[in-house]
Amino acid sequence: MKNIFVKAEIITIGNEILIGQIVDTNSAFLAEKLNELGVSVIQINSIPDKPDIIVSALNDASYRADIIIITGGLGPTNDDITKQTLASYFNSDLVMNMDVLEQIRLLLSSRGVTMNENNRLQALLPETCEVLKNRHGTAQGMLFNKSGKIFVALPGVPYEMKGIFTEELAPLLKARYKLPVIIHRTALTSGIAESHLAKLIEKWELSLPEHISLAYLPSPGIVRLRLSGTSIKEEMHLREEINNQMNRLEEIIQPWIYGYDNDTLEEITGKLLKAKSYTLSLAESCTGGKVSSMITSVPGCSDYFKGSCTAYSNQVKADVLGVNYDKIEHYGAVSREVATEMAYGARKVFRTDFAVSVTGIAGPTGGTDTKPVGTTWIAVASPQGIKAEKYQFGEHRERNIQKASITALFMLRNAIRLCS
Amino acid sequence: MKNIFVKAEIITIGNEILIGQIVDTNSAFLAEKLNELGVSVIQINSIPDKPDIIVSALNDASYRADIIIITGGLGPTNDDITKQTLASYFNSDLVMNMDVLEQIRLLLSSRGVTMNENNRLQALLPETCEVLKNRHGTAQGMLFNKSGKIFVALPGVPYEMKGIFTEELAPLLKARYKLPVIIHRTALTSGIAESHLAKLIEKWELSLPEHISLAYLPSPGIVRLRLSGTSIKEEMHLREEINNQMNRLEEIIQPWIYGYDNDTLEEITGKLLKAKSYTLSLAESCTGGKVSSMITSVPGCSDYFKGSCTAYSNQVKADVLGVNYDKIEHYGAVSREVATEMAYGARKVFRTDFAVSVTGIAGPTGGTDTKPVGTTWIAVASPQGIKAEKYQFGEHRERNIQKASITALFMLRNAIRLCS
Repeated sequence: MKNIFVKAEIITIGNEILIGQIVDTNSAFLAEKLNELGVSVIQINSIPDKPDIIVSALNDASYRADIIIITGGLGPTNDDITKQTLASYFNSDLVMNMDVLEQIRLLLSSRGVTMNENNRLQALLPETCEVLKNRHGTAQGMLFNKSGKIFVALPGVPYEMKGIFTEELAPLLKARYKLPVIIHRTALTSGIAESHLAKLIEKWELSLPEHISLAYLPSPGIVRLRLSGTSIKEEMHLREEINNQMNRLEEIIQPWIYGYDNDTLEEITGKLLKAKSYTLSLAESCTGGKVSSMITSVPGCSDYFKGSCTAYSNQVKADVLGVNYDKIEHYGAVSREVATEMAYGARKVFRTDFAVSVTGIAGPTGGTDTKPVGTTWIAVASPQGIKAEKYQFGEHRERNIQKASITALFMLRNAIRLCS
Repeated sequence: MKNIFVKAEIITIGNEILIGQIVDTNSAFLAEKLNELGVSVIQINSIPDKPDIIVSALNDASYRADIIIITGGLGPTNDDITKQTLASYFNSDLVMNMDVLEQIRLLLSSRGVTMNENNRLQALLPETCEVLKNRHGTAQGMLFNKSGKIFVALPGVPYEMKGIFTEELAPLLKARYKLPVIIHRTALTSGIAESHLAKLIEKWELSLPEHISLAYLPSPGIVRLRLSGTSIKEEMHLREEINNQMNRLEEIIQPWIYGYDNDTLEEITGKLLKAKSYTLSLAESCTGGKVSSMITSVPGCSDYFKGSCTAYSNQVKADVLGVNYDKIEHYGAVSREVATEMAYGARKVFRTDFAVSVTGIAGPTGGTDTKPVGTTWIAVASPQGIKAEKYQFGEHRERNIQKASITALFMLRNAIRLCS
């Protein structure tokens, strides 16, 4: 147990970020997770994959930070030189690690792939490093100790990096350092704009004590409100304080809170459906399969989700969902009447308890004076009847699709809660 | 005209990135645009908004780079300290710039806002700086000269930062430096693993001249191969060299190249369908609407896309798509027979020229010894008949869905090209 204020620095290796080809999401993930552990990230750097620059960045970082985490440059190809550079920086020979070799062989064989020379070379690792096992790919994580600092190298493929961090590195850091208590608690809201929320909770926000801070984290259709508390005292007291503040917040904005922390609307609606043994189907027009894709991202969704129809053309709305052609002609495809018939049709065709429909003008074209781009009707058919609502989203196609999908799930969540 | 190999370094100031709250998209924009100008970005740093750390970062960067670009910390509130820090770093007094003050007044008045004290303070600028005008907000860009290097500070609001870069800084850099030509060209491949590609093109890669480099950029289902060339000669010659190398690459791996640079499979398949006036429908099981969602992310897709059925339950496969129940029982839902009937059924129900079906075990559960998680059948029904292929993806649900979706679009693209 070394230190209560532990500082970390992140170094991303590779040219993709320096030429602007990819955005550095790995560092954002690591920064978020390290902060949650109570480790302060003091600097993030992106550098090219050149040995002398890597060495100089490691030297600079080791003056500032206790933990130096490097990502990238561990792939099997010629342009990946991180491993060789680290071996030489830590005066370590590269040796074949037979455990890792066997693990790589098993991983590849489970994918029906035969190991080739490039794969085999991934088991050639610096002798002095602690291996952080990669269960999701062939490039292993490596941890080196030097002058009381730890240096960690992780692969750049996001899901492999995340896997090694979560399964190997985070437990190791928790065990090795005595860290301050940092507690985050986030309320997830939908159906209300950030500026309206801010007005409603202004007084409460100003009354927060200094060691508890609030952050607004907006994304299309959702505003997350995150309370963060820091303390060197025991965890219990801080957790109680945060919970009390969260209770005060709930009293003000309860109708818009659908969940907490890492909850997602697709998981929440799934749990509600499953708990009541209800089934679900969808009829999507402007969201084009996005709602279906969100619902089916949840493992085990086949317990309640039967299926969906993306009815992009009017012909499909009529043929598959049984929407009345005359109504489409008379009211237009984006209307209360068509949204209602789509939800009704899906509920019948897919034989489910609930059905959600979305029909709107995602843009960039297709808008009119009376129905501009962003106009969207969402309907929910339930055992209790059908409810349809009109929304006016923005001008940006991708954001309109996201907002409509989130709003459809929020309406579904509210409808399920009304059914006992 | 100073130098032909100009190096830039980017420094992002602020805590949002260091706690993982936002992803650093500003640096990605600047890096991309600077590279297009022929300026090499050699390092990107995110640091906290603390004066001593900013000063130390400026010192470090000025050893490495010719141009140092800082973003963030120029807002009107108390936690924005970049301007004061720069004034002191460059031994410059803050003085009220009357031109800028007038410009801010006009900007605010065009938005119906009256200038307040915070806005007025935005016109208080270091005496020695060159002002880079902000037409989109109140925080001005600033340029300082010191020891032959230039230091630029831009606001952190992406829209304002991009505006100042494009309108003010880019023309200024072009005029001030004689810059080399940098050309990137990327081949997009699918249907082949990175390690196998690497083996196939090893000889060609080793034969590349020193001023042309290759990067592997993998993502689920896709490997992008990017050639980057730098030259001090005229652009035409380098472009020809890059094109020649790309031709040599194509000779080796033609069957797997589906596009170039910023192409996407959903756009490419859309263009191919549109060009031949073909229509498309989908029948998705394990991908759960992802393929439909990708297809409909393309504006104007209603010209060729009719609709899709997410057939998550066997009942829906039978009821909506007309798949034979006996075949599901006999061969299982993940089989050549069911994939084929799903594609056939979608083509018939949605009345389209092409239909793609995907049925697989996305995981984490549902796998068996003979059909482990990741087993996926994809079928494409076309005017020429039906083709089905089996794939073995990995163990990770989200990646399996992504890989299956990309692979389905790649198979569709190949099938459309076969139809004249």
